[in-house]
Amino acid sequence: MIQLHTWGTPNGRKVSIMLEELGVPYSLHPVNIGKDDQFKPEFLAISPNNKIPAIVDEDADGGPLNLFESGAILIYLAEKYGRFLPTIPHQRHTVIQWLMWQMGGLGPMMGQLGWFVVSDKNQTPVGVNRYAAEVERLFNVLEKRLSESAHVGGDEYSIADIAIYPWITQYRTRVPDHIEPLIQARPFISKWLAEVGRRPGVERGMKLP
Amino acid sequence: MIQLHTWGTPNGRKVSIMLEELGVPYSLHPVNIGKDDQFKPEFLAISPNNKIPAIVDEDADGGPLNLFESGAILIYLAEKYGRFLPTIPHQRHTVIQWLMWQMGGLGPMMGQLGWFVVSDKNQTPVGVNRYAAEVERLFNVLEKRLSESAHVGGDEYSIADIAIYPWITQYRTRVPDHIEPLIQARPFISKWLAEVGRRPGVERGMKLP
Repeated sequence: MIQLHTWGTPNGRKVSIMLEELGVPYSLHPVNIGKDDQFKPEFLAISPNNKIPAIVDEDADGGPLNLFESGAILIYLAEKYGRFLPTIPHQRHTVIQWLMWQMGGLGPMMGQLGWFVVSDKNQTPVGVNRYAAEVERLFNVLEKRLSESAHVGGDEYSIADIAIYPWITQYRTRVPDHIEPLIQARPFISKWLAEVGRRPGVERGMKLP
Repeated sequence: MIQLHTWGTPNGRKVSIMLEELGVPYSLHPVNIGKDDQFKPEFLAISPNNKIPAIVDEDADGGPLNLFESGAILIYLAEKYGRFLPTIPHQRHTVIQWLMWQMGGLGPMMGQLGWFVVSDKNQTPVGVNRYAAEVERLFNVLEKRLSESAHVGGDEYSIADIAIYPWITQYRTRVPDHIEPLIQARPFISKWLAEVGRRPGVERGMKLP
């Protein structure tokens, strides 16, 4: 059984969606980051970076495996179950490329925008402006990609879509004044969000925990 | 032949180091980001995210492959040449986990610290303080890891080390007042930096371009 330690953030929901899409059994353990649960010794033993999500796969090849970092968990589950990550090298590495684009670009930059808009009591303009501009640039890159490709990683739905969808969807609510206009002005992103959002596994995963 | 389009930044040097470690033939194409070379149409055709590094592998399985995102390039080259990424699932996914930690955490957070210290003319305190604290937290995570493991990804040297080394090494120079004290106070990071830095492939890669 896979033990999923997570919370309802975009990074957390990547893994909820993936497990719901795979339809494999797992147990959900909420880690309430509003109450600093991520600093409890039992969680740090699994995720020494004190971040959700993390999994323990009790039935991993070679014995129980602890894994943190949402992108690493997506690749692990994709390889274990043979889904949502192609095996043909061209397609495979293009999917990983866009997963990395989310992990190193879209996620961190939207996260910083959210912090300066929501958490920084002064909404320090140099921070808001810097990250708003970077997020807009990244949305332009994504819009161009989706104008040429049915899904972010290629023709097929993949872990690249699973990684990006919860970030954009949850940040529509978190920083609506910044994100909603970016979506409305971009028809390919809008269409892709609607299509991915209709997938039953995505619908279920977005409610967990 | 592999065509490497890059510049002397930490993300660029990950790939220079990897190719020098592998000892495979490649051609180097400098993309001077100080002169906005990354916005030229011929580079955007390879790297639509307008970031270095990017590669074109002319001899890829299935025809020429364009790839951007340093983390994706490291996984691609590791899988193509069968080095620096274990195949045993436990070891493999632990290496990918720490590579993701660099891609989504250490890299973006050091990058933001660098921007607020070096590029923001006001050195806006809310930004400097936020990212200095986050970088210190990440250094604590890395120090603990290296107190338990010879290399970041496990016993063996891997693409996780290759991804982290140039970031810490180049930021010692870029933001010395912040990074040098963090290194000096952490013996395991200090020892690891010295060991990795002595590898001939790393020495060569750190000079390119």
